[in-house]
Amino acid sequence: MHRGCVITVGELGEFGVISRISGRLSQSPAVLLGPGDDAAVLSAPDGRVVVTTDVLIEGRHFRRDWSSGYDIGRKAAAQNLADIAAMGAEPTSLVVGLGLPADTAIEWLDALTDGFRDECALAGTGVAGGDIARSEIVMIGVTALGDLGGRPPVTRSGARPGDVVAVTGRLGYAAAGLALLLAGFTPGTLPGGEGASPGLATLIDAHRRPQPPYARGPEAARLGATAMLDVSDGLLQDLGHVAAASGVGIRLDPAALPLPEVFAEAAGLLGDGTDPLDWVLTGGDDHALAATFPPDVRLPPGWTLVGDVAEGEGVQVTGRTTATDGTTGGWDHFRR
Amino acid sequence: MHRGCVITVGELGEFGVISRISGRLSQSPAVLLGPGDDAAVLSAPDGRVVVTTDVLIEGRHFRRDWSSGYDIGRKAAAQNLADIAAMGAEPTSLVVGLGLPADTAIEWLDALTDGFRDECALAGTGVAGGDIARSEIVMIGVTALGDLGGRPPVTRSGARPGDVVAVTGRLGYAAAGLALLLAGFTPGTLPGGEGASPGLATLIDAHRRPQPPYARGPEAARLGATAMLDVSDGLLQDLGHVAAASGVGIRLDPAALPLPEVFAEAAGLLGDGTDPLDWVLTGGDDHALAATFPPDVRLPPGWTLVGDVAEGEGVQVTGRTTATDGTTGGWDHFRR
Repeated sequence: MHRGCVITVGELGEFGVISRISGRLSQSPAVLLGPGDDAAVLSAPDGRVVVTTDVLIEGRHFRRDWSSGYDIGRKAAAQNLADIAAMGAEPTSLVVGLGLPADTAIEWLDALTDGFRDECALAGTGVAGGDIARSEIVMIGVTALGDLGGRPPVTRSGARPGDVVAVTGRLGYAAAGLALLLAGFTPGTLPGGEGASPGLATLIDAHRRPQPPYARGPEAARLGATAMLDVSDGLLQDLGHVAAASGVGIRLDPAALPLPEVFAEAAGLLGDGTDPLDWVLTGGDDHALAATFPPDVRLPPGWTLVGDVAEGEGVQVTGRTTATDGTTGGWDHFRR
Repeated sequence: MHRGCVITVGELGEFGVISRISGRLSQSPAVLLGPGDDAAVLSAPDGRVVVTTDVLIEGRHFRRDWSSGYDIGRKAAAQNLADIAAMGAEPTSLVVGLGLPADTAIEWLDALTDGFRDECALAGTGVAGGDIARSEIVMIGVTALGDLGGRPPVTRSGARPGDVVAVTGRLGYAAAGLALLLAGFTPGTLPGGEGASPGLATLIDAHRRPQPPYARGPEAARLGATAMLDVSDGLLQDLGHVAAASGVGIRLDPAALPLPEVFAEAAGLLGDGTDPLDWVLTGGDDHALAATFPPDVRLPPGWTLVGDVAEGEGVQVTGRTTATDGTTGGWDHFRR
């Protein structure tokens, strides 16, 4: 393409755009009838289907100056695929509804599409269909479907006193990265020049592109997890949902929580008195998995024991008093 | 509630809004695990699942000054449920992603929710889950799932020369109603006072609230339909998709198309030379079903034979030359 010659989705038209997107996608093995009809048809071998949906809105969930189209596609797919994993299921497909400004460069849409494709591939699936419409801002509605492989779904309500609490995946990385971005840092402007910690850039990357541990969802189900969810609103708030749904109390040991050294470095850079543990306890967007297991479980590598389940209610963090009801410190999409 | 005391979704907060929505919904019989977890679980007795998604954006697909929240909910559900019917399937659930301004009155959201609930009930299903986020304008992402009951899906590609073409449901009503609204008419300001034709108000209602013939989708499948789709972009354009996907030509007899008398009345009122047949041929948004059947089919009441399938390509309307490729006269979401 010549420099300065930017093709927009408005120029390509609805059917041109759909055709272009379809051409870049890989098919999920579960797809029996793919894009191009009124609906797609997928296999559901289990006789049940797991379904979850998320809506992402420009300026609210992502910024096009902070994240590339590719990163936004990865993230939009990841957060839905993580919800499927958190039920103990394997994803069978995504469908995507896109609202796009007419002046969106087709290269940006290509990158978004590639992001969806690549993140789906990590989870063994693909995009089976979608819809596209004109909008003033970018908005993305994603629905993921999954299959339980004959297992019961792992809900939020099965934790029992005596169970242990374990996490897998990153916690706090995305929140630390977002704090750096909000303070004006970008990977290119991090201080220290060639001596800058590569870890700091990793934090910013983590905000742009979460790395949910997809395979560990079905793994947890096979290990007998009694409750599980994906950490999207912060560990405290999300474990609070497990405590409330299960009618139990959860005790977290902060010393057991993974706290990478780069968090202290990031906090020092911000110089605003942030306690890095807050990122771990209240940061969303990493899409780690948190689960409860019977006390005799033998957890494979990748899981970290971080607490236990007791009679009572709420989430208690040893040495802290701010989060006894498990509802503080998380994210409310209307209140913030 | 006192006059002037409007509660907004921003005041209620994310979890309050979700709880309020959940409390107004009826459950689909297919739901095994409903809202409140990372994902819902639905039965998929067929071992396959049909899935379709649509995105509706304020100012593009609806206007809040033209349609109530209730009507918008009905319409958003209807267009997705019609896609499920057009595959010959029965819907098993909807999931809904909502972007809402924080100052949205909770009563508006209640009405939207009730619209979803009531339209789903017409099709024997319900909303199984969703997501909500803050947005500058209202946007609605709807995904519908369905079950084929052991039948093959009725796609767009199975029409064969010699088949007959039939339609069921309204054609052109919503387009005529939209033309009246665009010209400034509303049900309250239609001319004629008490003598005004009630049919004119019906047209405006049809724009606000389509009436897809859900049960006729599975009925067509059982009758041996060789191809089917829901008419959302206009009969010519949509039959053009069937012709292209099936590698055939389609001949439409305009004299066979239902043309209610009120269309002429509406055209006269507009006085802009509109040919009412254009509404029937190119109007979308009624979500009628168009299908092809083997020539020996005996169609039950409610279906209208409107043409046949021949060797060739495109859609030909007897006495017209403008639509030979089946791609003119329809709706392109980026080009208009």
